[in-house]
Parts: sequence; C-alpha cells; structure tokens
Amino acid sequence: MSEKKPDREQPELAFGSARPPLPPLPAAQKAAAKKPAAAAPRRAARQAARPVGGEPLLKRIAKEAGDVRTSILKGRKPTLRFPVRSLQNVTYQPGVGYFELKGREKERTLTVSTVKTFAQTLKMMSLSQELVRTDDIATKREAYYVSKNWAEARFKEQPESDAVMEDVEAFFGVNREQLGFVPEEKGGDVAGRLVVIDQDRDTGETLRIDCTRFGSGAYSIPISVETLGFETDADFILCIETAGMFQRLVKHNYWKQANCVLVSLGGVPTRACRRFVRRLADEKDIPVYVFVDGDPYGFSNIYRTLKVGSGNAAHLNEFFCVPQARFLGITPQDIIDYELPTHPLKDVDIKRAKDALKNDPFILHHKPWQLAMHQMIKMGVRAEQQALAKHGLNYVIDEYLPRKLGDVKAFLP
Amino acid sequence: MSEKKPDREQPELAFGSARPPLPPLPAAQKAAAKKPAAAAPRRAARQAARPVGGEPLLKRIAKEAGDVRTSILKGRKPTLRFPVRSLQNVTYQPGVGYFELKGREKERTLTVSTVKTFAQTLKMMSLSQELVRTDDIATKREAYYVSKNWAEARFKEQPESDAVMEDVEAFFGVNREQLGFVPEEKGGDVAGRLVVIDQDRDTGETLRIDCTRFGSGAYSIPISVETLGFETDADFILCIETAGMFQRLVKHNYWKQANCVLVSLGGVPTRACRRFVRRLADEKDIPVYVFVDGDPYGFSNIYRTLKVGSGNAAHLNEFFCVPQARFLGITPQDIIDYELPTHPLKDVDIKRAKDALKNDPFILHHKPWQLAMHQMIKMGVRAEQQALAKHGLNYVIDEYLPRKLGDVKAFLP
Repeated sequence: MSEKKPDREQPELAFGSARPPLPPLPAAQKAAAKKPAAAAPRRAARQAARPVGGEPLLKRIAKEAGDVRTSILKGRKPTLRFPVRSLQNVTYQPGVGYFELKGREKERTLTVSTVKTFAQTLKMMSLSQELVRTDDIATKREAYYVSKNWAEARFKEQPESDAVMEDVEAFFGVNREQLGFVPEEKGGDVAGRLVVIDQDRDTGETLRIDCTRFGSGAYSIPISVETLGFETDADFILCIETAGMFQRLVKHNYWKQANCVLVSLGGVPTRACRRFVRRLADEKDIPVYVFVDGDPYGFSNIYRTLKVGSGNAAHLNEFFCVPQARFLGITPQDIIDYELPTHPLKDVDIKRAKDALKNDPFILHHKPWQLAMHQMIKMGVRAEQQALAKHGLNYVIDEYLPRKLGDVKAFLP
Repeated sequence: MSEKKPDREQPELAFGSARPPLPPLPAAQKAAAKKPAAAAPRRAARQAARPVGGEPLLKRIAKEAGDVRTSILKGRKPTLRFPVRSLQNVTYQPGVGYFELKGREKERTLTVSTVKTFAQTLKMMSLSQELVRTDDIATKREAYYVSKNWAEARFKEQPESDAVMEDVEAFFGVNREQLGFVPEEKGGDVAGRLVVIDQDRDTGETLRIDCTRFGSGAYSIPISVETLGFETDADFILCIETAGMFQRLVKHNYWKQANCVLVSLGGVPTRACRRFVRRLADEKDIPVYVFVDGDPYGFSNIYRTLKVGSGNAAHLNEFFCVPQARFLGITPQDIIDYELPTHPLKDVDIKRAKDALKNDPFILHHKPWQLAMHQMIKMGVRAEQQALAKHGLNYVIDEYLPRKLGDVKAFLP
C-alpha cells in the first residue's frame, strides 16, 4: 500500500481534473529510484523498484526542465543525457535478477540539427507532467495524436514519438506508466485468494475487489497498476500461459484447494500483467510459479521474459520482470514422466532453442536450463499444457499440479 | 435469468463433480431451439436463440445415440444428417438479423469408408454428454487430446477433431458452449452499470459481481457465458474497439455520466464477448452502440462480425451475433466534422472496402453503409479512435460521445 501514499497525500493533485497553472516548485530532491549496485541482494533491488509517483516525479520534471531553461538564459547550449538502450549495454546478474543497463549514455545537445527532437523531448516531458498532475493516462498512440497540436514540433509518424517517449522514460529512470504513458493493450486476468485495493476516482472511496468472488469470470488487470494495493494470504501465485487452462482452474475453483492466486498470462504477458505479478509478489513476499507449454517458446519467450525481461527493452526490466518466478512446467522431463502426447519440434523451435543456448545470458547462467534445452532438442518433441488431458480433463488438477507442487525445489530456476 | 433454470433445477447434475453412470433417459422431447421462419420478427429470433442447456440437451444426445443403436440392432445402416456449413448455404434478412443457414444438409451413413469418422462423431457426442452432465468444459485442443485415449478412433490432427466437433454442434442446432466445448481464447472486459450474476461451483452460493466497483480494473468475461444472469438499469451498452480507449473511459468513470455498460472488444471480438453482449442486450432489452476505428477493418471485420456474424461460421451466427448493434463511429463523415488527423488508406483497406461493396450481403442490404464505404474510398483516408486526442485527451468524453449520443437515429445501421 505504500506506493499509494503519494496520491493520497495529494488528492487535489492526484484526482482533480482542473488544470491549474503549475506553481513554482522548490529545487528538486533526487528521487529514491537509484539503481542498486549490481551485486546487491534481491531485496534491495525490489525496494529500489518501487515507483516514484506523484509529487516527487513532478518535482524532478520541473527540475530538469528548469535546468534547460537556466542554461538557455545563461547563453549556454542545454544538454540532456539518456542511457543507451540496447543488448550491448546490458548485464545479467542473478542477485539483481533482471537485465541491467551498464550505464553507457548518449547526449542530446540543443543545436540547429537537433532542435526539433530537443523541442519534442521537452514537449513530451510537459505532457507527462500534465498527466501526472491530473492523474490521467495517455496511450503511446494518443500521445502521438496530441502532438498534432504542437505546431512545428508535431511528430510525423508514431515511431518517432515512441522513441522520444522511451528516451524520457529512461531519462527519469522510471517506467512509462509512472509518467502517465500506458500501453495500448490490456492483458492478464486474475482469480483466487486476493483482494485488490483500488479507489473510486470521483468519490475517493476505497474499493476492495475480491478475486474469490468472480465465479467463472475474473478480474481484468488494468493498463496501469502502479497505485493498486493488495491483501492476500495466498501461498503462491500461479501464472498460466493459456486462457483455456486458466479457465479450467477457475471453473474448478482450484485456487481454493491450493490456496493460491491464478493469473492468466494469455501468451507472452503484457507489461501491465508482468508489473502486476511483480508488485504483488514483492509486496506480499510470495513465490511465483509459472505453468506454460513445454516448448522453446514457452521457455524463452514467455517464462524468460516474465522472469528477467527482454533485451530490447532493457531500461524497463527493473520494473517489469519477476525475478522470483520459478518454472513449474511443462518440462522436457514431464513429457517422459507423464507420458504426454507430443508434437515434433519445428525448425523454428530448434532454432529458438539453439539461439538461447548460444546467446541468452539467462540460459547461459543457469546450467539446469541448458540441460533442459539440450534434452528437448535431443527428444525432438514438444508438449502443450493441454496434453495432460490425455489422462482425463481434470488430471491436471487432481494429479499433475499437486505432484509438482509437492517438490518446488525441483522447479527449474 | 431464465437461461439459468435448467442448471438450478438439476443441481446434482449441474454442480456435481462425481460421474455416476448415466441413468436411462426417457424418449427425447425435441428441444425448443427450432430455427424461426426466415421472415419472423427479430423478437422471435431472439427467443429461439436461448440456449438449450442441461437436461433437455442430455435427452437429445441420448435420443440421437439411441437411434443409431436401434438402427444397428435392426441390421440397418445408421445415418446422421448435418447442415452444410458454407457461404453458399446462408441468407441474410434484417428481420432475422444474422446470416442464416438455408437448410441444405449432408448425410453421414455408417459404411466401411466412414466407420472411423462415424465412430469419432459418436465419441465426440459422448464426451459432450459427459461435459454437460458434470458441468465441465473442454477446449477444442483438450478434446483433441482426450481422443488420444480413444484407441483406433483417436484423431491424428486437431483440424480433424475440430471438424467433427463443428458437425456435432450443427447437428444439435446449439452452440458449442452449450455442448461444453469452449474456445481457447478469452477476451472482452466489462465495466459500468451492470451486476453479473454467477454462482460458486462448490457452495452453490449466488455471486453478485458489481461492475461499478472495479476501479481502474474490469470484469473479464469468462470463456462460456451461457449461465450468467444480469441486473442493470443502463441506458445502453457501448462496445469499444481498443483497450486504450476502453481504459480511458473506465479511468474517468464515463459509465457514470452516460449511465451505460462499457465493453472492451479488444479488436475482433471473441465468441464469448459477442455472446455476452448478445445475451445482456436481449435479456435487458437495451441498445448496443459500437465505437471503433474509422476504417474498413473496423466497419467490416469488427462491426459487421459483431452485428450479423461471419460467413464461414454461419451455423453459429444465430447465437453469436448482436443484431441490435448500431454504429456510433468513427464514420467517414466524423473525419470531416471533427477534423481528425488521418492516415492514407492502404491497398488492403481499399480492397476490403471494394470487396464488401461487391460481396457482403450485409453491406449490400444497407444503402447508408454503401454510401459510407464509397465516401471513405473517395476520401482516401482512415482515422483511428485515438485521433480524437488531437483536440485534447478527454475531448472524446467531454465532446465527441455526448454529441454523437444526442442523435442516435443518425447512427449507421
């Protein structure tokens, strides 16, 4: 709940819809979101990952914009410095738990050739300031269209506006959602032993959303989850790849017997879904188990992305990965142990597995994952979650999950 | 709520998880789901679309299987008759409201060459009987894997098993969900003036899911919605194409000021989402307005599919279309009236529009749609919902939607 405090202490800022002129702000205090040292224990990384919201962020935006203004008034060329965002500028250390930026930076100095991008960057900061101040949101696409009223500074195409938004995001070392910019896509459903705490925007009333009381339905994770609070006594969070398997576990109230929270990833999880699981797991200190198809896509694209993030969005991993995640299944060994029906590996599966063994810092770090990948390539087959239905539709509930959960230490890292 | 009755009257069947041997059933009464005459008024079509669930369906399955058994015992070749499912076998009449099967049928008689398919069809009916009896569900994929234990009758590939499932569905004239077969994919979120009535499977407790109390989140529509009930005093249902626009309207509690139910389609709506809107609109007799991007994809693929269904799943349209839907926007005229930023039509857009003008029975029936399509082709541009952000992020709430809703008679049909 601590992440909600800034909003609650500033209700006139957070929930007002009027847009008063920005009062002058005191000199900025550097906000708390400093990156932990690479070797810091995971707990420290988690603490640091708490979002800087509301007032502190407004102060930082005003400070940086003020610095630019001061430079110009003094006749100096203003400069903004951004981290370089690429795979070449990341490291992986398990103690940190996610791909980290190494710290290389690029500069954007105001010159004749950079004047448009420079102006767009400041306009984007200004839009973000307005979003934070009015507790509003804008999708990347909306931000692009808003720029159509920026005269000469308007963006021609959305990729330009996306790139500037990512620069601003990396610049402040916060995630896009904290700046009020949200993805286009929702994704992620939740059922089970969890009460989500939200707030009615108009009345300020606290809303307790009880995820045990959705019947066959579920709670749909909003696009931005930064201000949600949680109450739970669940023993673990179970993340499930397919909507069909999720629906089966929901339909049979599996969360009751296992005392858990069920999360439907719906394939590769969205930012909002990853952030939701991360915040819940951090705040309540509960383990996260991942149940996906037994194929290289499930291992690398879904599980790896959920746990440590991805290479091409390295500046986000600090907030959007779930370092505490562990792999429940389907493992290559499960295919043997549970005599599952299989499909032959396709060329793209084999390529994906071999690429991971060669280039993926996460797989390269974990011997058990290398063994699992080699085993799958050697077996030449993959198996889906639903393949368990061979033994009966509810074999997954009656046999597979209880047996696996009886030995969580054996889970792949 | 009337659709829930069969389950409630047979709780030991509907909610039991044990699987007792099937008691002998009395000779079947033909269930109520007869197709209305083509010229019947819409209300009649709606009545007929109410699902046959639980006990009546179990009786019909037993009856049809019994007929096959009787034929065999009498030394006759048993025959099953299925409607032909193709565009050549559909008609469109606005009084009915959806693409209708014309009634052509194919026969499957037990012979040496059809023995495997015939057996698979009976096994699939048997699986469905078990699902209905135990109130369980199976995805198409799960049903395929279940067949791996059918010895010689097992399916080699999933498309075979899907085709047999569709035959069974068309055979009984009900939708797949009623047979216990559900899609793989979830989709569709709901917020606003609606209470969904569901039931706790274990305790039988009635669950009242209040969609006004989800804060920034939403109610995620389950894969099967056949047994849900509704309470609402909403004036209309607003279906929204993009998750981003939905989130904006939810974030600002738009449903309070407009007294409506908001539904996020997430692109082309899933079966569950379409069925949910249809059932809610039918049962509570409230209008459905659709708010999508102003492009041929939004018109033909999203709106048209929601309203009248699609050609290649004609046997489903009776249940999965929303004949009462009306098109709020974005219209080609909106692009002019609201001075929206546009993108040029791509070749694929133009082809889609021209195809619709030439081949789509729905467009061919409605002059206003033909005019709108021609207008868009002539303008050569399309516009997205988010383009309204040019005038301010909440222009859509403060200006566009109120203005449009002030003249619903002007909506495209």
